[in-house]
Amino acid sequence: MRHLMNPLDLTVEEIDGILDLANDIEANPSKYSHKCDGLKIATLFYEPSTRTRLSFEAAMINLGGQVLGFSSAASSSATKGESVADTIRMISCYADICAIRHPKEGAAYVASTKSSIPVINAGDGGHQHPTQTLTDLLTIRSLKGHLDNLTVGFCGDLKFGRTVHSLIHAMIRYPNVRFVLISPEELRVPSYIREDVLAKNNVPYKEVVRLEDALPELDLLYMTRVQKERFFNEEDYVRMKDFYILDKEKMKLAGQDMLVLHPLPRVNEIAVEVDDDPRAAYFKQVQYGVYARMALILTLLKWRDQ
Amino acid sequence: MRHLMNPLDLTVEEIDGILDLANDIEANPSKYSHKCDGLKIATLFYEPSTRTRLSFEAAMINLGGQVLGFSSAASSSATKGESVADTIRMISCYADICAIRHPKEGAAYVASTKSSIPVINAGDGGHQHPTQTLTDLLTIRSLKGHLDNLTVGFCGDLKFGRTVHSLIHAMIRYPNVRFVLISPEELRVPSYIREDVLAKNNVPYKEVVRLEDALPELDLLYMTRVQKERFFNEEDYVRMKDFYILDKEKMKLAGQDMLVLHPLPRVNEIAVEVDDDPRAAYFKQVQYGVYARMALILTLLKWRDQ
Amino acid sequence: MRHLMNPLDLTVEEIDGILDLANDIEANPSKYSHKCDGLKIATLFYEPSTRTRLSFEAAMINLGGQVLGFSSAASSSATKGESVADTIRMISCYADICAIRHPKEGAAYVASTKSSIPVINAGDGGHQHPTQTLTDLLTIRSLKGHLDNLTVGFCGDLKFGRTVHSLIHAMIRYPNVRFVLISPEELRVPSYIREDVLAKNNVPYKEVVRLEDALPELDLLYMTRVQKERFFNEEDYVRMKDFYILDKEKMKLAGQDMLVLHPLPRVNEIAVEVDDDPRAAYFKQVQYGVYARMALILTLLKWRDQ
Repeated sequence: MRHLMNPLDLTVEEIDGILDLANDIEANPSKYSHKCDGLKIATLFYEPSTRTRLSFEAAMINLGGQVLGFSSAASSSATKGESVADTIRMISCYADICAIRHPKEGAAYVASTKSSIPVINAGDGGHQHPTQTLTDLLTIRSLKGHLDNLTVGFCGDLKFGRTVHSLIHAMIRYPNVRFVLISPEELRVPSYIREDVLAKNNVPYKEVVRLEDALPELDLLYMTRVQKERFFNEEDYVRMKDFYILDKEKMKLAGQDMLVLHPLPRVNEIAVEVDDDPRAAYFKQVQYGVYARMALILTLLKWRDQ
Repeated sequence: MRHLMNPLDLTVEEIDGILDLANDIEANPSKYSHKCDGLKIATLFYEPSTRTRLSFEAAMINLGGQVLGFSSAASSSATKGESVADTIRMISCYADICAIRHPKEGAAYVASTKSSIPVINAGDGGHQHPTQTLTDLLTIRSLKGHLDNLTVGFCGDLKFGRTVHSLIHAMIRYPNVRFVLISPEELRVPSYIREDVLAKNNVPYKEVVRLEDALPELDLLYMTRVQKERFFNEEDYVRMKDFYILDKEKMKLAGQDMLVLHPLPRVNEIAVEVDDDPRAAYFKQVQYGVYARMALILTLLKWRDQ
Repeated sequence: MRHLMNPLDLTVEEIDGILDLANDIEANPSKYSHKCDGLKIATLFYEPSTRTRLSFEAAMINLGGQVLGFSSAASSSATKGESVADTIRMISCYADICAIRHPKEGAAYVASTKSSIPVINAGDGGHQHPTQTLTDLLTIRSLKGHLDNLTVGFCGDLKFGRTVHSLIHAMIRYPNVRFVLISPEELRVPSYIREDVLAKNNVPYKEVVRLEDALPELDLLYMTRVQKERFFNEEDYVRMKDFYILDKEKMKLAGQDMLVLHPLPRVNEIAVEVDDDPRAAYFKQVQYGVYARMALILTLLKWRDQ
């Protein structure tokens, strides 16, 4: 039996297998609509996340399975002082697989060590969120046709954005990928990623401050939100925030095939006017998220039974 | 594909069709128990409403379908600043139909403009609540046999009560309906309804202050709650509140066939002693609410597929 | 139609029947996986209890049924002033059976008097929690082979612990059961239990302060939590709390067949190091809780249909 804590728990071959399965699900949904008949997923959300929780629930229901769980810590027994380790042992009696989201780094890992069912980390603090990474990879591979030979721009808060860090880790395993890191000085990608991940693996990258400067060369733009609180002072925020808002005007600078991704929810970093641009892929990404989670659930249950 | 925002979105013929279907569901529930196999409803409740939410969920489950969603804004991604328009685009990837309740007028409409699945307004602030109106119409037609030729009393807070306004709008489309509007001066039906809806359409109505004065002539009494906060002063409230409490004594003034309806929850405006009176129809109304919603879900899904 | 408010609502024969059914479910789960197809349980949790709620939900899903409900009062219509009596009449239109947890003693009973579906008390304040008692009895009978001829130790807060009181009431109905009551002076079993339940029925018992003194003679140790707030002063708490923490060292004093039970959640009254001891039965108890609830649901639905 295996768990999924970190996207890197999976080899490139295993990820390819999951993405292949997801594409087959997309093409033939009815073939899979009873694969999980009689099975249950527990969604243990110690912090609310409608998007991720409902994506797991839709995935399991699409497979014929059922759902139980909680959507916030307030309605969980954590309020009575129960440890995550004890909760997962309880949940192992109730469900066949589980997705856990917890504000504390490592909580999902602790759960996995005591669990008798496969555990999926559905986000632990600022740390890991592997099903978002699978979703991103599936979206890119499905819409671009490949995961290698890409120039990928990441824009916004690259310091705290866990989805960015995870996707960088995942994509450097494919040949000929280069990155353009677009952020204000305060929110640059952490140095350990630049040095230990990118430089050490000879992955080409550059850093720029203005989105306009990066757009023409990108195959893919991954937008994230810039929270005002992250800036050292109001002045810097006001001066720079427009650099990180993607609008119709800026989209003119991009190539005809440049995809726009975003982990959502977006606030104002992508103007609503961009939604109708055929290059906007962030709502398709939501749909791919369901297929990716369906494929993951099936794969972990298959590994459990081997 | 169509949505349901306002009861008047439906023609009289369409409403009759939905009520016919609801009565057939009531008579032959097993005929419908697999009509929505493999389908999902999303219940997006930005404010809690157990009655309405569970009615939708029971309806979908009775049809063989499944449910996902959230029961309060606190556990939704609205707390992260996501717009309703973005949420519905996400939900369109997860479910086949959705019911949305939102404290803000027009929120369900905004959702419907961006949705790729049918959207049902399950209440937007004090504005519209069309499935309550369908429920009321189904209850009346099922128990009275017809929706025309009725003298209908509305009692309580007629100023703010959206269920009252909606039902007036819906019933004036049937011939020979007259209204008795029973309320304190402060809580009279708004003048636009008296002038633009009733007078302009030559619908007979009268206004009275005391429930006792109206009871003898009613075919139907629709009770609503009078909240203390609505009164200008404590004195008026104390003087008048008993006028608006229906008890056994007042029921003696009513005809043997007069139905009592209430959208529920009730607080004290109908004494518990009335519950056993055969004319009390407010709990039957709950059951009709499930049939009405089953019929509506089936109808909207049929229209989507045409 | 019958409800379950109190474990003593069931005769010894009826309990034996439910436990037999639970064991058959454990042995042949697939035989029962469609027994509740098309049926729904409503879980009405006016106070959160993940463990109990999810146990009911897992039980109903294992039987092929569906679930609806709420997990806290905040998302229920109780906030609008609706009585439990009105809520259950609504729920009777939505579901086939219901489990209700309410902080107020007697709330489940009030619900049962107005319900047209079987009501299970899933805990009413410090009062009753009959499915925990069924779970405890099933665990003991399954692992020990019998419910008579046992020396049972209860340890911790025996004053407020409703699970302890209920299990004492239930077990004195079996022959040759004796109790060892292990608690600080402040948290002794209430005198009405000692006098009216134990002494009056000639059930042998003794009271001790230190867990070590009781362990050698027990067939079964039922642990509960000692909350700091229960003590009259900090000094007493500090002096005594270690008496009530079960660890590896203390387990050496116990017999090779002594079972350890706990209603969970535990905080620190059983050291994590005890979990791997084969005598630790508290996680198995969770699994038996699902079987017990499956058997109870089937039994109440069968009685309803008779």
